Amino acid sequence: MDRLSLNQKTTEHWSVEEAVAGCVEAGIGWIGLWREPVAATGLEASAEAVRRAGIRVSSLCRGGFFPSATDADWERALADNRAAVDEAVVLGTDTVVLVCGGIAGGDLDRSRRQVEEGIGIVAPYAAERGVRLAIEPLHPMFCADRSVIVTLGQALDVADRLGHDNVGVVVDTFHLWWDPDVWDQIARAGERIFAYQVCDWLDPLPDVLLGRGMMGDGVIDFRPFTDAVQAAGYRGPIEVEIFNEEIWNSPGPAVLATMVDRYERLVKPA
Amino acid sequence: MDRLSLNQKTTEHWSVEEAVAGCVEAGIGWIGLWREPVAATGLEASAEAVRRAGIRVSSLCRGGFFPSATDADWERALADNRAAVDEAVVLGTDTVVLVCGGIAGGDLDRSRRQVEEGIGIVAPYAAERGVRLAIEPLHPMFCADRSVIVTLGQALDVADRLGHDNVGVVVDTFHLWWDPDVWDQIARAGERIFAYQVCDWLDPLPDVLLGRGMMGDGVIDFRPFTDAVQAAGYRGPIEVEIFNEEIWNSPGPAVLATMVDRYERLVKPA
Repeated sequence: MDRLSLNQKTTEHWSVEEAVAGCVEAGIGWIGLWREPVAATGLEASAEAVRRAGIRVSSLCRGGFFPSATDADWERALADNRAAVDEAVVLGTDTVVLVCGGIAGGDLDRSRRQVEEGIGIVAPYAAERGVRLAIEPLHPMFCADRSVIVTLGQALDVADRLGHDNVGVVVDTFHLWWDPDVWDQIARAGERIFAYQVCDWLDPLPDVLLGRGMMGDGVIDFRPFTDAVQAAGYRGPIEVEIFNEEIWNSPGPAVLATMVDRYERLVKPA
Repeated sequence: MDRLSLNQKTTEHWSVEEAVAGCVEAGIGWIGLWREPVAATGLEASAEAVRRAGIRVSSLCRGGFFPSATDADWERALADNRAAVDEAVVLGTDTVVLVCGGIAGGDLDRSRRQVEEGIGIVAPYAAERGVRLAIEPLHPMFCADRSVIVTLGQALDVADRLGHDNVGVVVDTFHLWWDPDVWDQIARAGERIFAYQVCDWLDPLPDVLLGRGMMGDGVIDFRPFTDAVQAAGYRGPIEVEIFNEEIWNSPGPAVLATMVDRYERLVKPA
Protein backbone atom coordinates (compact mmCIF):
# COMPACT_ATOMS: atom_id res chain seq x y z
CA MET A 1 0.00 0.00 0.00
CA ASP A 2 2.96 2.35 0.30
CA ARG A 3 2.56 3.40 -3.33
CA LEU A 4 -1.21 3.58 -3.69
CA SER A 5 -2.61 7.06 -4.25
CA LEU A 6 -6.21 8.25 -4.35
CA ASN A 7 -6.66 10.63 -7.24
CA GLN A 8 -9.43 12.77 -5.87
CA LYS A 9 -11.36 12.61 -9.14
CA THR A 10 -12.32 9.08 -8.00
CA THR A 11 -14.28 10.61 -5.12
CA GLU A 12 -15.58 13.62 -7.04
CA HIS A 13 -18.07 14.73 -4.41
CA TRP A 14 -15.56 14.83 -1.55
CA SER A 15 -13.87 18.09 -0.64
CA VAL A 16 -10.10 18.08 -0.18
CA GLU A 17 -10.54 17.68 3.59
CA GLU A 18 -12.95 14.79 3.14
CA ALA A 19 -10.68 13.06 0.64
CA VAL A 20 -7.67 13.49 2.92
CA ALA A 21 -9.62 12.10 5.87
CA GLY A 22 -10.79 9.21 3.70
CA CYS A 23 -7.20 8.39 2.80
CA VAL A 24 -6.10 8.45 6.44
CA GLU A 25 -9.03 6.23 7.41
CA ALA A 26 -8.21 3.76 4.63
CA GLY A 27 -4.47 3.77 5.27
CA ILE A 28 -3.64 5.40 1.93
CA GLY A 29 -0.49 7.52 2.08
CA TRP A 30 -0.82 9.52 -1.13
CA ILE A 31 -3.39 11.75 -2.75
CA GLY A 32 -3.58 13.21 -6.27
CA LEU A 33 -5.26 16.62 -6.16
CA TRP A 34 -7.25 18.62 -8.70
CA ARG A 35 -7.06 22.38 -8.87
CA GLU A 36 -10.82 23.07 -8.78
CA PRO A 37 -11.52 21.36 -5.44
CA VAL A 38 -8.24 22.75 -4.09
CA ALA A 39 -9.45 26.24 -5.02
CA ALA A 40 -12.83 25.55 -3.42
CA THR A 41 -11.15 24.60 -0.13
CA GLY A 42 -8.45 27.22 -0.52
CA LEU A 43 -4.87 26.55 -1.60
CA GLU A 44 -3.25 27.09 1.81
CA ALA A 45 -6.02 25.26 3.62
CA SER A 46 -5.64 22.29 1.25
CA ALA A 47 -1.87 22.21 1.77
CA GLU A 48 -2.37 22.40 5.53
CA ALA A 49 -4.96 19.59 5.50
CA VAL A 50 -2.56 17.31 3.67
CA ARG A 51 0.38 18.22 5.90
CA ARG A 52 -1.58 17.75 9.10
CA ALA A 53 -2.77 14.34 7.96
CA GLY A 54 0.79 13.26 7.22
CA ILE A 55 0.05 12.15 3.66
CA ARG A 56 1.79 13.21 0.47
CA VAL A 57 0.53 14.75 -2.76
CA SER A 58 1.40 12.52 -5.71
CA SER A 59 0.44 15.04 -8.42
CA LEU A 60 -1.64 18.07 -9.22
CA CYS A 61 -4.16 17.92 -12.09
CA ARG A 62 -4.07 19.76 -14.35
CA GLY A 63 -2.04 22.09 -16.47
CA GLY A 64 -2.16 22.02 -20.25
CA PHE A 65 -4.91 23.20 -22.62
CA PHE A 66 -2.38 25.07 -24.69
CA PRO A 67 -4.07 25.21 -28.13
CA SER A 68 -5.48 28.68 -28.61
CA ALA A 69 -7.27 30.40 -31.46
CA THR A 70 -6.31 33.91 -30.28
CA ASP A 71 -3.27 35.58 -28.73
CA ALA A 72 -5.31 36.38 -25.63
CA ASP A 73 -6.23 32.70 -25.19
CA TRP A 74 -2.60 31.76 -25.64
CA GLU A 75 -1.39 34.16 -22.98
CA ARG A 76 -4.13 32.99 -20.65
CA ALA A 77 -3.05 29.37 -21.19
CA LEU A 78 0.57 30.15 -20.37
CA ALA A 79 -0.42 32.12 -17.26
CA ASP A 80 -2.69 29.31 -16.14
CA ASN A 81 0.12 26.78 -16.48
CA ARG A 82 2.48 28.95 -14.45
CA ALA A 83 -0.25 29.21 -11.82
CA ALA A 84 -0.56 25.41 -11.75
CA VAL A 85 3.19 25.20 -11.10
CA ASP A 86 2.93 27.72 -8.28
CA GLU A 87 0.04 25.80 -6.73
CA ALA A 88 2.00 22.54 -6.94
CA VAL A 89 4.81 24.15 -4.96
CA VAL A 90 2.43 25.24 -2.20
CA LEU A 91 0.82 21.80 -2.11
CA GLY A 92 4.20 20.11 -1.83
CA THR A 93 4.09 18.02 -4.98
CA ASP A 94 6.76 17.97 -7.69
CA THR A 95 4.43 16.84 -10.48
CA VAL A 96 1.89 18.75 -12.56
CA VAL A 97 -0.13 16.59 -14.95
CA LEU A 98 -0.70 18.17 -18.36
CA VAL A 99 -3.93 17.51 -20.22
CA CYS A 100 -2.65 19.21 -23.31
CA GLY A 101 -5.89 20.48 -24.86
CA GLY A 102 -7.98 19.72 -27.93
CA ILE A 103 -8.18 21.34 -31.34
CA ALA A 104 -8.37 25.13 -31.32
CA GLY A 105 -9.56 27.10 -34.32
CA GLY A 106 -10.13 23.97 -36.37
CA ASP A 107 -6.40 23.40 -36.91
CA LEU A 108 -5.07 20.09 -35.53
CA ASP A 109 -1.49 20.56 -36.72
CA ARG A 110 -1.19 24.06 -35.30
CA SER A 111 -2.79 22.88 -32.05
CA ARG A 112 -0.13 20.21 -31.75
CA ARG A 113 2.62 22.75 -32.39
CA GLN A 114 1.13 25.02 -29.73
CA VAL A 115 1.19 22.21 -27.17
CA GLU A 116 4.88 21.68 -27.79
CA GLU A 117 5.68 25.38 -27.79
CA GLY A 118 3.66 25.96 -24.62
CA ILE A 119 5.36 23.18 -22.70
CA GLY A 120 8.71 24.52 -23.87
CA ILE A 121 7.85 27.96 -22.49
CA VAL A 122 6.56 26.75 -19.12
CA ALA A 123 9.25 24.11 -18.52
CA PRO A 124 12.05 26.47 -17.36
CA TYR A 125 9.61 28.27 -15.05
CA ALA A 126 8.65 24.90 -13.55
CA ALA A 127 12.27 23.74 -13.32
CA GLU A 128 13.25 26.81 -11.30
CA ARG A 129 10.57 25.80 -8.80
CA GLY A 130 11.48 22.11 -8.69
CA VAL A 131 8.34 21.05 -10.56
CA ARG A 132 8.07 18.43 -13.30
CA LEU A 133 5.58 18.59 -16.17
CA ALA A 134 4.00 15.23 -16.95
CA ILE A 135 2.46 15.07 -20.44
CA GLU A 136 -0.58 12.81 -20.32
CA PRO A 137 -1.44 11.23 -23.66
CA LEU A 138 -5.21 10.85 -23.63
CA HIS A 139 -7.24 8.22 -25.46
CA PRO A 140 -7.68 9.17 -29.14
CA MET A 141 -11.42 9.61 -28.59
CA PHE A 142 -10.48 12.83 -26.76
CA CYS A 143 -8.33 14.21 -29.58
CA ALA A 144 -10.87 16.82 -30.69
CA ASP A 145 -11.82 18.26 -27.33
CA ARG A 146 -9.23 17.44 -24.65
CA SER A 147 -5.82 16.36 -25.90
CA VAL A 148 -4.24 16.40 -29.32
CA ILE A 149 -1.53 14.25 -27.69
CA VAL A 150 -2.93 10.74 -28.01
CA THR A 151 -0.16 8.17 -27.79
CA LEU A 152 2.76 7.61 -25.45
CA GLY A 153 5.10 7.63 -28.43
CA GLN A 154 3.85 11.06 -29.49
CA ALA A 155 4.22 12.41 -25.93
CA LEU A 156 7.79 11.11 -25.78
CA ASP A 157 8.55 12.64 -29.18
CA VAL A 158 7.47 16.01 -27.76
CA ALA A 159 9.56 15.48 -24.62
CA ASP A 160 12.55 14.41 -26.73
CA ARG A 161 12.41 17.43 -28.99
CA LEU A 162 12.09 19.83 -26.03
CA GLY A 163 14.95 18.22 -24.14
CA HIS A 164 14.06 19.55 -20.67
CA ASP A 165 14.85 17.20 -17.79
CA ASN A 166 11.64 18.16 -16.04
CA VAL A 167 9.35 17.23 -18.95
CA GLY A 168 8.11 13.65 -18.93
CA VAL A 169 4.95 11.59 -19.30
CA VAL A 170 2.02 10.01 -17.51
CA VAL A 171 1.26 6.35 -18.16
CA ASP A 172 -2.51 5.92 -17.71
CA THR A 173 -3.92 2.47 -18.44
CA PHE A 174 -7.32 3.79 -19.56
CA HIS A 175 -5.78 5.96 -22.24
CA LEU A 176 -3.08 3.61 -23.49
CA TRP A 177 -4.20 -0.02 -23.18
CA TRP A 178 -5.31 -0.36 -26.82
CA ASP A 179 -1.93 0.68 -28.27
CA PRO A 180 0.05 -2.25 -29.72
CA ASP A 181 3.17 -0.12 -29.35
CA VAL A 182 2.68 0.77 -25.68
CA TRP A 183 5.18 -1.74 -24.24
CA ASP A 184 8.01 -0.49 -26.42
CA GLN A 185 7.10 3.09 -25.58
CA ILE A 186 7.01 2.45 -21.81
CA ALA A 187 10.49 0.94 -22.08
CA ARG A 188 11.58 3.93 -24.14
CA ALA A 189 10.13 6.32 -21.54
CA GLY A 190 12.30 4.95 -18.74
CA GLU A 191 12.93 7.61 -16.12
CA ARG A 192 10.67 10.05 -17.94
CA ILE A 193 7.63 8.31 -16.45
CA PHE A 194 6.55 10.90 -13.87
CA ALA A 195 3.18 9.36 -12.98
CA TYR A 196 1.36 6.06 -13.29
CA GLN A 197 -2.45 6.15 -13.20
CA VAL A 198 -4.85 3.23 -13.36
CA CYS A 199 -8.49 2.57 -14.04
CA ASP A 200 -10.34 0.09 -16.21
CA TRP A 201 -12.06 0.21 -19.63
CA LEU A 202 -15.65 -0.98 -19.35
CA ASP A 203 -17.18 -2.93 -22.23
CA PRO A 204 -19.58 -1.69 -23.40
CA LEU A 205 -18.36 1.82 -22.69
CA PRO A 206 -21.11 3.56 -20.69
CA ASP A 207 -19.99 7.09 -21.53
CA VAL A 208 -17.03 8.70 -23.30
CA LEU A 209 -16.04 10.86 -20.35
CA LEU A 210 -17.71 9.38 -17.28
CA GLY A 211 -17.65 5.66 -18.11
CA ARG A 212 -14.31 4.63 -16.65
CA GLY A 213 -14.23 1.59 -14.43
CA MET A 214 -12.84 0.25 -11.18
CA MET A 215 -9.89 -2.06 -11.81
CA GLY A 216 -11.23 -5.54 -12.46
CA ASP A 217 -14.57 -4.37 -13.85
CA GLY A 218 -13.33 -4.03 -17.44
CA VAL A 219 -10.99 -5.44 -20.05
CA ILE A 220 -7.58 -4.07 -19.02
CA ASP A 221 -4.88 -6.45 -17.82
CA PHE A 222 -2.99 -4.38 -15.23
CA ARG A 223 -0.20 -6.84 -14.48
CA PRO A 224 1.80 -6.19 -17.67
CA PHE A 225 1.36 -2.43 -17.22
CA THR A 226 2.72 -2.48 -13.68
CA ASP A 227 5.51 -4.83 -14.73
CA ALA A 228 6.41 -2.56 -17.66
CA VAL A 229 6.55 0.68 -15.66
CA GLN A 230 8.54 -1.13 -12.93
CA ALA A 231 10.95 -2.48 -15.54
CA ALA A 232 11.30 1.06 -16.89
CA GLY A 233 12.45 2.10 -13.42
CA TYR A 234 9.33 3.81 -12.10
CA ARG A 235 9.06 3.61 -8.31
CA GLY A 236 6.63 6.44 -7.61
CA PRO A 237 3.00 6.51 -6.47
CA ILE A 238 0.28 4.66 -8.35
CA GLU A 239 -2.84 6.80 -8.67
CA VAL A 240 -6.31 5.41 -9.05
CA GLU A 241 -8.25 7.94 -11.11
CA ILE A 242 -11.80 6.98 -12.07
CA PHE A 243 -14.32 9.22 -13.84
CA ASN A 244 -17.55 7.32 -13.20
CA GLU A 245 -20.87 8.73 -12.11
CA GLU A 246 -21.97 5.54 -10.40
CA ILE A 247 -18.76 5.45 -8.33
CA TRP A 248 -19.07 9.17 -7.62
CA ASN A 249 -22.54 8.57 -6.22
CA SER A 250 -21.41 5.68 -4.00
CA PRO A 251 -20.26 6.26 -0.38
CA GLY A 252 -16.60 7.28 -0.40
CA PRO A 253 -15.38 4.83 2.24
CA ALA A 254 -16.88 1.91 0.30
CA VAL A 255 -15.22 3.14 -2.91
CA LEU A 256 -11.85 3.32 -1.14
CA ALA A 257 -12.27 -0.14 0.36
CA THR A 258 -12.97 -1.62 -3.09
CA MET A 259 -10.12 0.40 -4.56
CA VAL A 260 -7.63 -0.91 -1.97
CA ASP A 261 -8.77 -4.48 -2.52
CA ARG A 262 -8.55 -4.28 -6.32
CA TYR A 263 -5.19 -2.52 -6.14
CA GLU A 264 -3.77 -5.23 -3.91
CA ARG A 265 -5.01 -8.02 -6.14
CA LEU A 266 -4.65 -6.59 -9.65
CA VAL A 267 -2.23 -3.66 -9.76
CA LYS A 268 0.31 -3.68 -6.94
CA PRO A 269 3.92 -4.38 -7.99
CA ALA A 270 4.99 -7.95 -7.26
CA MET B 1 -18.29 12.05 -59.26
CA ASP B 2 -16.86 9.02 -61.06
CA ARG B 3 -15.27 7.77 -57.83
CA LEU B 4 -17.97 8.60 -55.28
CA SER B 5 -19.63 5.58 -53.68
CA LEU B 6 -22.61 5.39 -51.35
CA ASN B 7 -21.85 2.97 -48.55
CA GLN B 8 -25.34 1.79 -47.81
CA LYS B 9 -24.81 2.17 -44.05
CA THR B 10 -25.27 5.90 -44.71
CA THR B 11 -28.89 5.22 -45.70
CA GLU B 12 -29.52 2.52 -43.12
CA HIS B 13 -33.26 2.36 -43.61
CA TRP B 14 -33.11 1.88 -47.37
CA SER B 15 -33.25 -1.64 -48.84
CA VAL B 16 -30.68 -2.60 -51.45
CA GLU B 17 -33.15 -1.76 -54.23
CA GLU B 18 -33.92 1.61 -52.69
CA ALA B 19 -30.25 2.44 -52.21
CA VAL B 20 -29.45 1.41 -55.78
CA ALA B 21 -32.32 3.54 -57.10
CA GLY B 22 -31.12 6.43 -54.93
CA CYS B 23 -27.64 6.17 -56.45
CA VAL B 24 -29.03 6.15 -59.99
CA GLU B 25 -31.22 9.14 -59.24
CA ALA B 26 -28.26 11.06 -57.73
CA GLY B 27 -25.83 10.08 -60.48
CA ILE B 28 -23.63 8.01 -58.16
CA GLY B 29 -21.90 5.15 -59.95
CA TRP B 30 -20.78 3.04 -57.00
CA ILE B 31 -22.37 1.43 -53.97
CA GLY B 32 -20.81 -0.25 -50.92
CA LEU B 33 -23.06 -3.05 -49.70
CA TRP B 34 -23.58 -4.65 -46.29
CA ARG B 35 -24.35 -8.33 -45.93
CA GLU B 36 -27.42 -7.98 -43.70
CA PRO B 37 -29.50 -5.84 -46.10
CA VAL B 38 -28.20 -7.94 -49.00
CA ALA B 39 -29.49 -11.05 -47.22
CA ALA B 40 -32.82 -9.34 -46.54
CA THR B 41 -33.26 -8.56 -50.25
CA GLY B 42 -31.69 -11.84 -51.32
CA LEU B 43 -28.15 -12.26 -52.66
CA GLU B 44 -29.10 -12.90 -56.28
CA ALA B 45 -31.81 -10.25 -56.26
CA SER B 46 -29.30 -7.73 -54.88
CA ALA B 47 -26.74 -8.61 -57.53
CA GLU B 48 -29.40 -8.31 -60.21
CA ALA B 49 -30.60 -4.92 -58.89
CA VAL B 50 -27.08 -3.54 -59.08
CA ARG B 51 -26.43 -5.03 -62.53
CA ARG B 52 -29.69 -3.77 -63.96
CA ALA B 53 -28.99 -0.26 -62.66
CA GLY B 54 -25.56 -0.26 -64.28
CA ILE B 55 -23.71 0.70 -61.11
CA ARG B 56 -20.76 -1.08 -59.51
CA VAL B 57 -20.21 -2.50 -56.04
CA SER B 58 -17.19 -0.87 -54.40
CA SER B 59 -16.98 -3.27 -51.44
CA LEU B 60 -18.88 -5.70 -49.28
CA CYS B 61 -19.01 -5.12 -45.50
CA ARG B 62 -18.11 -7.10 -43.59
CA GLY B 63 -15.94 -10.10 -42.90
CA GLY B 64 -13.75 -10.35 -39.83
CA PHE B 65 -14.75 -10.94 -36.19
CA PHE B 66 -12.09 -13.61 -35.87
CA PRO B 67 -11.36 -13.60 -32.10
CA SER B 68 -13.08 -16.59 -30.57
CA ALA B 69 -13.18 -18.02 -27.08
CA THR B 70 -14.11 -21.53 -28.27
CA ASP B 71 -13.19 -23.81 -31.16
CA ALA B 72 -16.80 -23.75 -32.33
CA ASP B 73 -16.77 -19.94 -32.47
CA TRP B 74 -13.49 -20.03 -34.36
CA GLU B 75 -14.83 -22.45 -36.99
CA ARG B 76 -17.97 -20.35 -37.32
CA ALA B 77 -15.85 -17.23 -37.85
CA LEU B 78 -13.81 -18.87 -40.61
CA ALA B 79 -16.95 -20.23 -42.32
CA ASP B 80 -18.57 -16.81 -42.11
CA ASN B 81 -15.56 -15.17 -43.74
CA ARG B 82 -15.57 -17.70 -46.57
CA ALA B 83 -19.29 -16.97 -47.02
CA ALA B 84 -18.53 -13.25 -47.23
CA VAL B 85 -16.02 -13.98 -50.00
CA ASP B 86 -18.59 -16.09 -51.88
CA GLU B 87 -21.18 -13.32 -51.56
CA ALA B 88 -18.70 -10.74 -52.87
CA VAL B 89 -18.19 -12.88 -55.98
CA VAL B 90 -21.93 -13.03 -56.64
CA LEU B 91 -22.27 -9.28 -56.08
CA GLY B 92 -19.43 -8.56 -58.48
CA THR B 93 -17.07 -6.80 -56.08
CA ASP B 94 -13.43 -7.73 -55.54
CA THR B 95 -13.21 -6.26 -52.02
CA VAL B 96 -14.41 -7.59 -48.67
CA VAL B 97 -13.93 -5.19 -45.76
CA LEU B 98 -12.74 -6.87 -42.55
CA VAL B 99 -13.89 -5.53 -39.21
CA CYS B 100 -11.55 -7.79 -37.36
CA GLY B 101 -13.41 -8.27 -34.06
CA GLY B 102 -12.95 -7.27 -30.43
CA ILE B 103 -11.51 -9.08 -27.44
CA ALA B 104 -12.68 -12.68 -27.00
CA GLY B 105 -12.33 -14.52 -23.71
CA GLY B 106 -10.70 -11.54 -22.03
CA ASP B 107 -7.40 -12.04 -23.87
CA LEU B 108 -6.33 -9.10 -26.06
CA ASP B 109 -3.06 -10.62 -27.21
CA ARG B 110 -4.61 -13.93 -28.22
CA SER B 111 -7.43 -12.08 -29.95
CA ARG B 112 -4.87 -10.20 -32.03
CA ARG B 113 -3.09 -13.43 -32.93
CA GLN B 114 -6.43 -14.96 -33.95
CA VAL B 115 -7.14 -12.06 -36.29
CA GLU B 116 -3.85 -12.59 -38.04
CA GLU B 117 -4.24 -16.35 -38.18
CA GLY B 118 -7.81 -16.08 -39.44
CA ILE B 119 -6.94 -13.69 -42.25
CA GLY B 120 -4.07 -16.00 -43.19
CA ILE B 121 -6.46 -18.94 -43.46
CA VAL B 122 -9.12 -17.11 -45.48
CA ALA B 123 -6.73 -15.24 -47.80
CA PRO B 124 -5.94 -18.16 -50.18
CA TYR B 125 -9.64 -19.03 -50.40
CA ALA B 126 -10.35 -15.41 -51.34
CA ALA B 127 -7.44 -15.25 -53.80
CA GLU B 128 -8.74 -18.27 -55.72
CA ARG B 129 -11.98 -16.35 -56.20
CA GLY B 130 -10.37 -13.05 -57.15
CA VAL B 131 -11.35 -11.36 -53.90
CA ARG B 132 -9.22 -9.02 -51.79
CA LEU B 133 -9.43 -8.76 -48.01
CA ALA B 134 -9.24 -5.18 -46.74
CA ILE B 135 -8.29 -4.94 -43.06
CA GLU B 136 -10.04 -1.94 -41.54
CA PRO B 137 -8.28 -0.49 -38.53
CA LEU B 138 -11.04 0.89 -36.32
CA HIS B 139 -10.78 3.80 -33.91
CA PRO B 140 -9.18 2.67 -30.62
CA MET B 141 -12.45 3.30 -28.78
CA PHE B 142 -13.70 0.12 -30.51
CA CYS B 143 -10.76 -2.04 -29.42
CA ALA B 144 -12.73 -3.95 -26.77
CA ASP B 145 -15.83 -4.78 -28.75
CA ARG B 146 -15.25 -4.42 -32.50
CA SER B 147 -11.65 -4.43 -33.64
CA VAL B 148 -8.41 -5.22 -31.87
CA ILE B 149 -6.75 -3.74 -34.97
CA VAL B 150 -6.68 -0.01 -34.21
CA THR B 151 -4.02 1.73 -36.28
CA LEU B 152 -3.07 1.68 -39.94
CA GLY B 153 0.49 0.76 -38.94
CA GLN B 154 -0.76 -2.28 -37.04
CA ALA B 155 -2.96 -3.35 -39.98
CA LEU B 156 -0.01 -3.04 -42.34
CA ASP B 157 2.19 -5.03 -39.95
CA VAL B 158 -0.38 -7.84 -40.13
CA ALA B 159 -0.53 -7.61 -43.93
CA ASP B 160 3.27 -7.57 -44.13
CA ARG B 161 3.69 -10.64 -41.97
CA LEU B 162 1.06 -12.59 -43.91
CA GLY B 163 2.51 -11.63 -47.27
CA HIS B 164 -0.58 -12.37 -49.40
CA ASP B 165 -1.06 -10.07 -52.39
CA ASN B 166 -4.79 -9.96 -51.76
CA VAL B 167 -4.54 -8.74 -48.17
CA GLY B 168 -4.53 -4.95 -47.77
CA VAL B 169 -6.14 -2.16 -45.78
CA VAL B 170 -8.99 0.31 -45.60
CA VAL B 171 -8.21 3.96 -44.96
CA ASP B 172 -11.20 5.43 -43.11
CA THR B 173 -10.91 9.05 -42.00
CA PHE B 174 -13.17 8.61 -38.95
CA HIS B 175 -10.99 5.85 -37.55
CA LEU B 176 -7.57 7.27 -38.38
CA TRP B 177 -7.62 11.09 -38.29
CA TRP B 178 -6.20 11.38 -34.75
CA ASP B 179 -3.05 9.32 -35.51
CA PRO B 180 0.09 11.48 -35.80
CA ASP B 181 1.66 8.63 -37.76
CA VAL B 182 -1.14 8.24 -40.33
CA TRP B 183 0.55 10.12 -43.20
CA ASP B 184 3.66 7.96 -43.03
CA GLN B 185 1.51 4.85 -42.83
CA ILE B 186 -0.63 5.83 -45.84
CA ALA B 187 2.56 6.32 -47.83
CA ARG B 188 3.83 2.97 -46.58
CA ALA B 189 0.53 1.30 -47.56
CA GLY B 190 0.86 2.29 -51.21
CA GLU B 191 -0.95 -0.19 -53.44
CA ARG B 192 -2.23 -2.08 -50.43
CA ILE B 193 -4.94 0.54 -49.95
CA PHE B 194 -7.99 -1.42 -51.12
CA ALA B 195 -10.65 1.02 -49.97
CA TYR B 196 -10.96 4.67 -48.94
CA GLN B 197 -13.91 5.61 -46.72
CA VAL B 198 -14.85 9.03 -45.43
CA CYS B 199 -17.02 10.57 -42.77
CA ASP B 200 -16.46 13.25 -40.16
CA TRP B 201 -15.74 13.29 -36.41
CA LEU B 202 -18.31 15.41 -34.60
CA ASP B 203 -17.23 17.45 -31.57
CA PRO B 204 -18.66 16.79 -29.08
CA LEU B 205 -19.11 13.15 -30.06
CA PRO B 206 -22.86 12.42 -29.85
CA ASP B 207 -22.46 8.66 -29.53
CA VAL B 208 -19.60 6.16 -29.73
CA LEU B 209 -21.21 4.08 -32.48
CA LEU B 210 -23.89 6.24 -34.07
CA GLY B 211 -22.35 9.70 -33.78
CA ARG B 212 -20.41 9.94 -37.04
CA GLY B 213 -20.86 13.02 -39.13
CA MET B 214 -21.39 14.22 -42.67
CA MET B 215 -18.17 15.59 -44.13
CA GLY B 216 -17.86 19.23 -43.13
CA ASP B 217 -19.87 18.89 -39.93
CA GLY B 218 -16.88 17.90 -37.78
CA VAL B 219 -13.16 18.38 -37.22
CA ILE B 220 -11.57 16.26 -39.96
CA ASP B 221 -9.62 17.91 -42.74
CA PHE B 222 -10.29 15.66 -45.74
CA ARG B 223 -7.98 17.33 -48.24
CA PRO B 224 -4.72 15.90 -46.81
CA PHE B 225 -6.33 12.45 -46.57
CA THR B 226 -7.41 12.44 -50.22
CA ASP B 227 -4.04 13.85 -51.26
CA ALA B 228 -2.23 11.17 -49.25
CA VAL B 229 -4.18 8.22 -50.65
CA GLN B 230 -3.82 9.67 -54.15
CA ALA B 231 -0.08 10.07 -53.65
CA ALA B 232 0.04 6.46 -52.45
CA GLY B 233 -1.44 5.46 -55.79
CA TYR B 234 -5.05 4.79 -54.85
CA ARG B 235 -7.46 5.38 -57.73
CA GLY B 236 -10.48 3.37 -56.56
CA PRO B 237 -13.91 4.38 -55.31
CA ILE B 238 -14.35 6.73 -52.36
CA GLU B 239 -17.08 5.49 -50.05
CA VAL B 240 -19.11 7.72 -47.79
CA GLU B 241 -20.02 5.62 -44.76
CA ILE B 242 -21.88 7.42 -41.96
CA PHE B 243 -23.32 5.78 -38.85
CA ASN B 244 -25.64 8.53 -37.60
CA GLU B 245 -29.19 8.15 -36.37
CA GLU B 246 -30.17 11.67 -37.37
CA ILE B 247 -28.96 11.09 -40.93
CA TRP B 248 -30.63 7.67 -40.97
CA ASN B 249 -33.92 9.30 -40.09
CA SER B 250 -33.62 11.96 -42.79
CA PRO B 251 -35.06 11.43 -46.30
CA GLY B 252 -32.55 9.46 -48.38
CA PRO B 253 -32.55 11.74 -51.45
CA ALA B 254 -31.73 14.76 -49.26
CA VAL B 255 -28.90 12.84 -47.58
CA LEU B 256 -27.46 11.92 -50.99
CA ALA B 257 -27.75 15.49 -52.24
CA THR B 258 -25.81 16.78 -49.23
CA MET B 259 -23.32 13.95 -49.56
CA VAL B 260 -22.63 14.78 -53.23
CA ASP B 261 -22.21 18.46 -52.43
CA ARG B 262 -19.83 17.86 -49.52
CA TYR B 263 -17.88 15.28 -51.51
CA GLU B 264 -17.40 17.71 -54.38
CA ARG B 265 -16.26 20.51 -52.11
CA LEU B 266 -14.27 18.72 -49.41
CA VAL B 267 -13.18 15.25 -50.49
CA LYS B 268 -12.92 14.86 -54.26
CA PRO B 269 -9.38 14.46 -55.65
CA ALA B 270 -8.05 17.65 -57.20
